[in-house]
This record gives sequence, C-alpha cells and structure tokens, in this order.
Amino acid sequence: MQIIKNIKDMQALSRRLRAENKTIGFVPTMGALHEGHLSLIRHSQNINSITVVSIFINPIQFGPNEDLKQYPQDLEGDLNRLSSLNPVIVFTPVASEMYPESFSTSVTVGSLGGILCGASRPGHFNGVATVVAKLFNIVRPDNAYFGQKDFQQTVIIKKLIKDLNFDINVIICPTVRELDGLAMSSRNTYLNNEERRASAVLYRALKFGEELILSGGMVEAPSVKGQIGKLITAEPLAKIDYVEIVDPHSLAKADKIASPVAICIAVIIGKTRLIDNLLVESK
Amino acid sequence: MQIIKNIKDMQALSRRLRAENKTIGFVPTMGALHEGHLSLIRHSQNINSITVVSIFINPIQFGPNEDLKQYPQDLEGDLNRLSSLNPVIVFTPVASEMYPESFSTSVTVGSLGGILCGASRPGHFNGVATVVAKLFNIVRPDNAYFGQKDFQQTVIIKKLIKDLNFDINVIICPTVRELDGLAMSSRNTYLNNEERRASAVLYRALKFGEELILSGGMVEAPSVKGQIGKLITAEPLAKIDYVEIVDPHSLAKADKIASPVAICIAVIIGKTRLIDNLLVESK
Repeated sequence: MQIIKNIKDMQALSRRLRAENKTIGFVPTMGALHEGHLSLIRHSQNINSITVVSIFINPIQFGPNEDLKQYPQDLEGDLNRLSSLNPVIVFTPVASEMYPESFSTSVTVGSLGGILCGASRPGHFNGVATVVAKLFNIVRPDNAYFGQKDFQQTVIIKKLIKDLNFDINVIICPTVRELDGLAMSSRNTYLNNEERRASAVLYRALKFGEELILSGGMVEAPSVKGQIGKLITAEPLAKIDYVEIVDPHSLAKADKIASPVAICIAVIIGKTRLIDNLLVESK
Repeated sequence: MQIIKNIKDMQALSRRLRAENKTIGFVPTMGALHEGHLSLIRHSQNINSITVVSIFINPIQFGPNEDLKQYPQDLEGDLNRLSSLNPVIVFTPVASEMYPESFSTSVTVGSLGGILCGASRPGHFNGVATVVAKLFNIVRPDNAYFGQKDFQQTVIIKKLIKDLNFDINVIICPTVRELDGLAMSSRNTYLNNEERRASAVLYRALKFGEELILSGGMVEAPSVKGQIGKLITAEPLAKIDYVEIVDPHSLAKADKIASPVAICIAVIIGKTRLIDNLLVESK
C-alpha cells in the first residue's frame, strides 16, 4: 500500500503509470470506510492493474449547518481495512492544498443539482462536481467507481463526465446493506441503538414501494409516494425529508409509472439524515 | 495534416499518442487563423512531438447581442494556412456534439470573470472556461498555448488549470502585431479602411502609458489611465470600453504603480470592439 499526500506526487505517479500502459481504477471516498467502499475497491481491482482510493472529506460539499466537523474520521482504521485487500494506492490530500485561499473555481451541473438532496442541501452537488473534477484531473483514471446508494450523485457524475468530456468510464456498484436492509453509510455511526433499529424503515419503505409498483395495482406516482410516506411516518423516530419517484436518467419526477423508475428517499432519524433508493422496473 | 471532427475519435487518438509516450501541444482557436495563431503553433511544434490545433467557434462564450453569427469562418483558408506548417492534427468538432441539447454543466472561475472584459461581456469567461475544460479533457495535452493578446483569458485559464488541477503546462506567447502595432485578431476583418487606420490608436495608447510609467514621473494609476483615455478619445472613431491598470496575476486594480502591471484596454472602433494590453515593469 502506497500513501500519497501531495497533489503533484499523485499526478506524477499517475503519469508514470499511464506511460507504463497501466489501467487505473479510482474509488473516491471521504474515509470512514465500510463494506460498501470495500466492494467498490474490489470491483476496481477485478479489471484495473492499479486501484487508487482517495480519502478526502470535501469541505465544499457541506452546508454551513451540516456535519462537516462531526464527520467520522479514522485514517488509521481505514488503512487497516485497506491492508486486507490487494495493494492499493491511497491518496489523502489536505484541504489547504485542495482549496488554497485563492481557490475560486466552481463546477455546476445545472438543475440536476437543485432537486431531491440538492433542495435540502443547497450547493452540495456543486461541491461534489467540483471536487470530483479535481480528483479526476489529479488521478486521471480509466475507470471510476461510485456506489448506487448516492443515486443522485451517480447521475450528476455521469452528467459531469458527459458534459465536460472526461475520458473516464463510470461504474455504479450495487448498494451494500446491513442484515436488516439499512444501506451502509459512514453516517450510520451517528445513530444510537434505538435510532439504528428505527432506520430499517428506509429499506422497508423502498421494498413496499417496489411491491406496490410491481403488483401493478398502483401506477400513479403520487399514490405510491403517499403510501411509502405513511409507512415511514408510522415509525415515530423518522421524519421525511423527501419521498420521490423519478426517471433514473433525468431525475425528472415520474407521474404515471410506465417505465423503470428510481424510488429515492431521504429520512431524518433522530438528528441523522439518511438516504436510500431502489431502481424498479415497472410491470 | 489529419482532420478530426468527432470527439470520441480525438480522445482515442490522444490515448494512442500518450501510450506511445508522445508529448502533445495544444493550440485552441476559433479559426480565421492569422499570424498570431501560427506563432502559437510554431511555439508548440518547437517542443512537442505532436501539435493539435482545434478550430471551434464556441457559441457559449458569445452574449446574445454579440457577433456569433458574423464571426469570420474560413475553414478552407485555415487548412491552407496550416498546410504550410509541419503537419498538425486539426480538431474541428461541431457545436451539436460539443453542446447537445441536454448539456447543462458550467465552469465558473469566480470574480476574475466579472471584471474588465467580463463586465461588458457577462457570461463570456464562463463560456471560455467551460469550453477550455472540455477541450482539455478531449485533447489531454501536455502543453497548451494561448496568446497574450487575450490577457484576461490567459489569467483565467491559468486559474482554471490551478484550481481544477489539470496536469497541463500553459504557455503564454507574445502578441503578434501589424506594422502599425495593431494586435492581430480575427475581428480585425470587421474594420473598414478608415477604421483600420484609426485602430492603431490602441497600441499607441498602450505605449504612451508605458512611457508615462517608465519615465517615473507618474505613479498614480488613475492619472496614467486618465492620460491614456485622453489619447484614445482624441481619435474620433474610437470609443473607450475600459482602460485599466491591473496586477498581472490577480487582475486587481492597481492604485499606486510600484510593481509590474498590465495596462489593459478595450476600445470600440466603429462597431468593432478591440482589446489589447501591455505588461509594464515599473521603474
């Protein structure tokens, strides 16, 4: 395992690897690695000669009242977890080098960034698009891996790659779940025991929505959303941020469910905001 | 000379050239090539094994009332001019592939894009930064060449490269001038004979400003700007858009002239807006 802190060093290494015709797989993370991240890394190792994992808590994707300061950090634990895999290159830049005082450039992906999570987290997806553009330019991978759990993020990154012509394949890997269905997330560590138990409601709600759609009895998106919402609200610790049924490519709100859709939800459990989603092929 | 129209073809060629460890020099242009462009290409050919020249009139850097529709186009003439040089790769994408209907991503470089030319051309530099980011990702050069004539553009592109960590060297080449000092520009073709004669006032004004600064008698930027303005206004066909004296790195307005500055001017001759600049080391 090689650990690189400096941007120029990472660029020099990437240049050397390309000159040797190595294919580079890239897994960008904010650390606090869990099984979901490890599964992305394994996907990358299956087809690339080199895998680069970045660990960087990106300050510009957090709003002023969000959890930047509390966000779990455990570099030592992360490196331990990574050491159990085939060797990877770990890129851990510092915020002051990624965003020096003079930094002023921003990448916006348009209206896609203002809906769903973007509505309750203004500026979040500009922060994501900007850091991903930077990381792509630093690492210059052939293939980049993202988890489906952050569904809107995957749509936005595909858009970023397409619109700005990054010569990079993006691979979306399935969400890894706990036994009760809760999607793995670094933020799950915020939950106390009671909240952890309650948080199973997200996946339950998604599967219920899927059932309603697949049973074919309910094709009006607002009705399905209503039913999902009721199920979530029945959990006393849960507060809905949004329940949406959208086109999986454009993220446009579906009206009648006639083609594949994504059910996307954001639910606040105690003080922790959790998101999850499910792709559903309608009947 | 190889002509490539398709983005994917250009990316594939660039990938192949990198695999062969060729260095790629890149000269982005909007066509209507003149000696200034050719000089950029020669600079590139001096140190790169391959030079890519893009010819693309970028619609998103033109405002709604600007000269997009009139902008000179002469692909045949351009290719003739290029054929006199060492072979180059010419990349001429079409607007519908560069900006499909779904396109919605934008790169902004912050306040640098809102001053000087950005004040009279709102959105212009976002359009420049966005297309340059796209072209960088398509061509993936080692070195990129820009003319000093578009001084603010060079500062913004250096900022773009630094902030988004493009692994590209940028080389700024001296402005190439006509015998009377007029900076070469594709827009000079808009000028009728009388206007062409009058347009020599830009360089005359810059040299006069330089003289005032170098003589050491005048160190207050507002006075120097006033004197330059007077000289320009004495030309009946000329109307000042701006006369500014700025820090050459930050573009911040200079107050007292104590260190190197850039004199930047934009002047409308008839209906044609011309820009020029001069770097001056103060005494």
